[in-house]
Amino acid sequence: MKRRIGIVGGGQLGRMIGLEAKRLGFRVSVIDPTPHSPASQVVDKQIVAKYEDEKAIRELAGDSDFLTFEIELANAKLLRELEGGGVSINPSPETLIMIKDKLKQSEFLKNLGIPVADFVSVNSKKDIENAALEFNYPILLKSRFDGYDGRGNALIKSEKDIDKGIDKLRDRKLYVEKFVPFVKELAVITARDIDGNITCYPVVETIQKNNICTEVYAPALIDERAAKKANSLAIKTMQHLKGAGAFGIEMFLTKTGEVMINEIAPRVHNSGHFTQDACFVSQFEQHVRAITGMPLGETDMLAKRAVMINILGDRNGKANLRGLGKALAVKKTAVHIYGKQETRIDRKMGHINSIGDTHDEALRRARKAASFIRI
Amino acid sequence: MKRRIGIVGGGQLGRMIGLEAKRLGFRVSVIDPTPHSPASQVVDKQIVAKYEDEKAIRELAGDSDFLTFEIELANAKLLRELEGGGVSINPSPETLIMIKDKLKQSEFLKNLGIPVADFVSVNSKKDIENAALEFNYPILLKSRFDGYDGRGNALIKSEKDIDKGIDKLRDRKLYVEKFVPFVKELAVITARDIDGNITCYPVVETIQKNNICTEVYAPALIDERAAKKANSLAIKTMQHLKGAGAFGIEMFLTKTGEVMINEIAPRVHNSGHFTQDACFVSQFEQHVRAITGMPLGETDMLAKRAVMINILGDRNGKANLRGLGKALAVKKTAVHIYGKQETRIDRKMGHINSIGDTHDEALRRARKAASFIRI
Repeated sequence: MKRRIGIVGGGQLGRMIGLEAKRLGFRVSVIDPTPHSPASQVVDKQIVAKYEDEKAIRELAGDSDFLTFEIELANAKLLRELEGGGVSINPSPETLIMIKDKLKQSEFLKNLGIPVADFVSVNSKKDIENAALEFNYPILLKSRFDGYDGRGNALIKSEKDIDKGIDKLRDRKLYVEKFVPFVKELAVITARDIDGNITCYPVVETIQKNNICTEVYAPALIDERAAKKANSLAIKTMQHLKGAGAFGIEMFLTKTGEVMINEIAPRVHNSGHFTQDACFVSQFEQHVRAITGMPLGETDMLAKRAVMINILGDRNGKANLRGLGKALAVKKTAVHIYGKQETRIDRKMGHINSIGDTHDEALRRARKAASFIRI
Repeated sequence: MKRRIGIVGGGQLGRMIGLEAKRLGFRVSVIDPTPHSPASQVVDKQIVAKYEDEKAIRELAGDSDFLTFEIELANAKLLRELEGGGVSINPSPETLIMIKDKLKQSEFLKNLGIPVADFVSVNSKKDIENAALEFNYPILLKSRFDGYDGRGNALIKSEKDIDKGIDKLRDRKLYVEKFVPFVKELAVITARDIDGNITCYPVVETIQKNNICTEVYAPALIDERAAKKANSLAIKTMQHLKGAGAFGIEMFLTKTGEVMINEIAPRVHNSGHFTQDACFVSQFEQHVRAITGMPLGETDMLAKRAVMINILGDRNGKANLRGLGKALAVKKTAVHIYGKQETRIDRKMGHINSIGDTHDEALRRARKAASFIRI
C-alpha cells in the first residue's frame, strides 16, 4: 500500500491531519519554517523550510505518495509542475492557484451562478472611488492574494477612508467588494473523493471577533431553508472544483434569508474542528481519506449539538498551559492543544469541543471550560 | 503546568496513550527495546532500552513529571524506589508489584471477599497432584510471573498432563488454579483518579481464540444482574488498589450467573479499545487524566452498541497494510493501525471499531471491515 503523506505546512491543521493519518497507518512528513512545529511533534519528519521553498517541496514530493497542504501559502505553481511529474497532489494545484487569487475565486463562483458579494478589480484610487459610486459605501478594499484572518482587508466607510485603506494594503493587488450586511456567518465543511463523490458536514455558524473565529455552533441556529441553501451551494461549488480533499466554505446569511459564499478555503478549516468530537469521522480523517483515494466517511453528528471555542493567546511570550484539569471537569468537553511553544495575542493555541443535547448546554459547557484555560 | 509524561513501554498501548496525551498538550517520552516502536512514531522521544533497564528508567524519570507504564514487565522495584524520590508514578509501583505476582493477586482478591477461582501455591509435582485431588481435574498450572496471552498457563486435564505442564513452565514459580467452566469472558475498564474517585466503562464481553482476544462486544450481551455484579466487583477491587490510572479487569461469567475475577491488568487494556470510537472520553484519555491528577471523564457510550476486532498478523515478515480503503467504506467503522514494522502470526497489528444501533449491526460492520484488511 502507498502510505507516505507529505503536507506543506506544519501548523495545527497539519498536526490534526497528521494525527489521523498516523492512526490509519500512514507515514507523515511536513514542511514548516518553524522548528518543532505543531505537526512535527506527532508525525515522522519535518523539513524546516519556508512553505514556498522549491528544494524542500521537491524533497517532500520525492518522499511522498500523496502530497497535500494545510495552508494557502503553499507554492502552487511548483505543485502544479510536480503534479505533471506524477506525484498525487490534492486538492489540485490548479484549484489552489485559482483560490489563492480572491478575485479569480469570486469570478469562478459568479460564473457558476452562485451568489457572491458584488466585486470589481481596482488598480487606482479612481477605480476605488468608481466602485464606491457603483456599490455605495461601505465597501471592502481587499487584497487579491495572501489575505488571512482579515489582515488583507480594509473597510471603507466613506471617501476619507480610501487613502488609509490604500496605505494599509500598499504594494498589493487589490479589488473592491460590496459590503454585505450579513446577519450570520455560516460555514460548510465539504469534501470530495478522487471519484468525485461529495459529502458535507452540517452547516455551522461561526462567530468572529476582530476577524478571528472565536466560536462555532454546530449545526447553525438557522431555519432549514437556509441550511439547505448553504448545503447546496457547497455541493455546487465542489462539483466545479478540481481535486480531492476537505474544503471549508465560508458563507454569509443576509437579513432577507439569502445565502452567499464569502470565501473558499482549499483545506480543512477551523469551522470544522467540532467534527473531531461530534462526528464519527472528523474533517481531518475525511481529508486523509480523500487525498489517498479512499472513500469518504459519514458526516452526520453523533451528538445533537456541538460548540467549538478557540483557545487564543492573551499575551506574547512562552506558552504555559494552565487550567486544563478544571476544563476537563466540565462534562462532555474535549480539549485540543497544538503544542505551540510561543503564545501571542489572538494566536490560535488550541480549541475546546463540547457536545450537548441542546445548544445552550453545549455552549455553557464550552464557555465554562474556556474560562479556566490560560496558555 | 507540569506537562512531561514518561511511559515504560512503547507498544500500541503506549502509542494510544501518547496520542491522547499529545492532544492534551503533554510532552511524551517512552522506553522500548524496539527502535522506531509504535509509540515512538507519535510521541516526542524514545529511549531504546529494555523495560527493566535501570539506567533508562532513571533517565526517563528524570525527564518526566508523571511516570506510567503500558506493560507489566516494567521494573516495579526500581519504580518503587523512584517514587520514594518524589517522581509521581501511577498506577502505584506497589500495586504493580502485587499484580505481577498472580498468586499474590488472587490472594488480594480473595481477601476482599471477591469471587476468584480456587487456587493453591505449588512447589512440586506432589503439590500439583494434591491440588488436583482437592479441586478435581481439569486444573490450570500457572506461572506466578510474566504470563501473557496464555503463554504462562498449562491446562492439566488428567494426571498424565502434569509432566508436560511442568516441562512447559519449567524454571518458573507456579501455582494451581481450579478450572472455571465459564460461559462468557467479561471485562471492565475502570479508572481511579488521584483523589480516589472511580469510574467504570460498560461491562464488555471478550472473545478469545488461542488465548488471544479477537473480538470485544460493548456492552456485554448479558443480563443486567450480571452486569451490575461485574461493575460492583470492579469498583470494590479499585477501592483497595493503590494509585491512579486505568485498569482492565478480566472476569468470568459462569453457567450459574456467578461473576468471578480472572485477572487484573494495571493498565489500559485491549478490551477497552472500543471506547476510542464509542465514548466521548477514551480509556487512553482517562488514563492520562488519572495519572496527571486531573478529573476523570464520563464513561457512557455515545453509540448504542460497539464491536472491536483485533487485526492480527497472519504471516511472519514485513508489515504491508492492504484493504484499508475497502474497510473504511463500511459505515461507522474506524481503523487503528499501530505502525509495527514487522508482522507475525497472531501479533496485534491494529484494530477495528464499529458502532451500530444493534449488536448485529456493529458486529456485521466490524467483521466486514476486518475481512478486507491484510497486514
